[in-house]
Amino acid sequence: MDRDKFFMERALRLAEKGVGSTSPNPMVGAVLVKDGEIIGEGFHKKAGEPHAEVLALKQAGERARGAELFVTLEPCSHYGRTPPCVQAIIKAGVTGVVAAMEDPNPLVSGRGIKMLEEAGIQVRVGVMEERARKLNEVFIKYITTKKPFVVGKIAQSLDGKIALSSGISRWITGEPARIRAHELRSRYDAVMVGIGTVLADDPLLTCRLPGREKDPVKIVVDSTLKIPVNARLFQDSGKVIIAATQKADRQKMRVLKELGADIIETESNGGDMVNLPQLFEILGTMGITGVLVEGGSRLLASLSKEELLDKLIIFVAPRLIGAEGLSSVGNLFVDELKKTPRFTIGSLEQIGEDIMLEAYKG
Amino acid sequence: MDRDKFFMERALRLAEKGVGSTSPNPMVGAVLVKDGEIIGEGFHKKAGEPHAEVLALKQAGERARGAELFVTLEPCSHYGRTPPCVQAIIKAGVTGVVAAMEDPNPLVSGRGIKMLEEAGIQVRVGVMEERARKLNEVFIKYITTKKPFVVGKIAQSLDGKIALSSGISRWITGEPARIRAHELRSRYDAVMVGIGTVLADDPLLTCRLPGREKDPVKIVVDSTLKIPVNARLFQDSGKVIIAATQKADRQKMRVLKELGADIIETESNGGDMVNLPQLFEILGTMGITGVLVEGGSRLLASLSKEELLDKLIIFVAPRLIGAEGLSSVGNLFVDELKKTPRFTIGSLEQIGEDIMLEAYKG
Repeated sequence: MDRDKFFMERALRLAEKGVGSTSPNPMVGAVLVKDGEIIGEGFHKKAGEPHAEVLALKQAGERARGAELFVTLEPCSHYGRTPPCVQAIIKAGVTGVVAAMEDPNPLVSGRGIKMLEEAGIQVRVGVMEERARKLNEVFIKYITTKKPFVVGKIAQSLDGKIALSSGISRWITGEPARIRAHELRSRYDAVMVGIGTVLADDPLLTCRLPGREKDPVKIVVDSTLKIPVNARLFQDSGKVIIAATQKADRQKMRVLKELGADIIETESNGGDMVNLPQLFEILGTMGITGVLVEGGSRLLASLSKEELLDKLIIFVAPRLIGAEGLSSVGNLFVDELKKTPRFTIGSLEQIGEDIMLEAYKG
Repeated sequence: MDRDKFFMERALRLAEKGVGSTSPNPMVGAVLVKDGEIIGEGFHKKAGEPHAEVLALKQAGERARGAELFVTLEPCSHYGRTPPCVQAIIKAGVTGVVAAMEDPNPLVSGRGIKMLEEAGIQVRVGVMEERARKLNEVFIKYITTKKPFVVGKIAQSLDGKIALSSGISRWITGEPARIRAHELRSRYDAVMVGIGTVLADDPLLTCRLPGREKDPVKIVVDSTLKIPVNARLFQDSGKVIIAATQKADRQKMRVLKELGADIIETESNGGDMVNLPQLFEILGTMGITGVLVEGGSRLLASLSKEELLDKLIIFVAPRLIGAEGLSSVGNLFVDELKKTPRFTIGSLEQIGEDIMLEAYKG
């Protein structure tokens, strides 16, 4: 591995420590290098707290003069909740900056680099860019579109079934895969299910892992407010959002609001279903950058038809359930193979006895 | 890599050159090493032709004296179509033998090793044994049970569908995966489909690849002889076997025999279906060591219910078809998850834009 990759790898690993807690900010890691030695490093922990670059500079102190900074994202040039990193970098006397990628926000992209160059700092961009982009795929989608990054999660058999015909689905995958699936919840601002899943499985939708401070917002797509008031997802502190249509019963709406739920009413999309594109626009305005959709098969099918799925994460257990089982994705009503929704395999991994595969839209 | 693995790796690669042509014999490769140098090598090409060890000894000539032999399978000790290799090894003055695995045939296993040791040759067994066992998984099953190794092949979408609801299935996977699937046909003595697949797709079931000399035997499971006399699989030279029940129409049977097909009539298993366990026993007595089952979903389900599938090879295209599509495996009628047929992931590979996964029974 060359020198650039060695230090950027370290910066990326630091950045990953912020997983699940930096939203709406990106995960960023920074490593300050002088004479081949790391003299300071840092990562962004949480919005409002110091940026990675500033932490690395602080650790290095006076030694930062003449050093080279490796950072996973172009340093910021604007005043947000913290002063711009670019100023701190210039002030500290850093002589070189290597960034994995430009700021994805088209309105500010390149500005930080320009300011650094104007101050006489040598800047290089693009080292391990692909990994940096994957790390911040949620942030990139959100900052460029103001809509959340949508991930469909499925746990299925080799033949694509998520339950026996009787509805039994616990457990298709093994414990290591189920732990990984729970960890996923902590990576996204929100977890979403369809009302069918609430009625069938009555899930908690919490993260339920030790050491995780933040539970995701729980979103239920429930056009006519069928959700029972004693559903388990109301039973803990996490915020609940219910997406309904304007036809939903007002009385039930009041009851649910008293339980602490937020109700989002989408406009009619011609039918009786929740207007999903509008729902995600609204969730974006609420600052929700990423949504993990855990099913059911009908919601996943609707999202697929509306081309709203940015990514699929599929856990596959090496067993067969048979055709009478419940299919992982509902009816799509496609009449030609070339019109079926296409994805691109992103990764492939064995987890315990199961497989996890990631696939991206298109 | 240590010395043993280096030379055994070479021997395994040589053995693989015999893929698809050695049946009913195993694939075997041999490397003769003296003073750290390969002085002779060989692989078994075809039943009746010389064994790998003999070819390696022949290439080395007089230099074989004092050499070490690396061979992927315990050398044979019995007269078959060729004289026993053990004699040739002793006669040539080889002083050491490293075998990846013992002969899997329990009746002769260890005998070759014993004879070599009695002649004062140092023998070690078990170097890269796992790979050697996988290489000859078909042979091992056949020689130990007299029944063919059965592989179910599926080409499906992410959600486990092999066709649109209209039956359209060409093509779910991309060209690289389809080429790989065709190559598979050359690895097994026979290719099997259910009558439903013949009626729906009218497949040729030939290998259709340049440079492949041998087409597999084509087997159709067709309890009541519904196969049309103009089915495309009769249109070339490959042998056709049709598995029916004793209730099948005698007139149709005569017509099919005139077309060159062999008919296997299985005994009643209580229902109107072909008795699959009996069918594979008969195929075994016919010298068929491995069968690639290409569908349809009903035949795969029946094989799964009878616990006849030794292995699944599933090509997964990164697309969704939806619940209304045709499921890859038919109804299994299992009422508990723990009773669903279990497999173990053997390998995971990206092929073009698709995935290929291998899973073994149990």
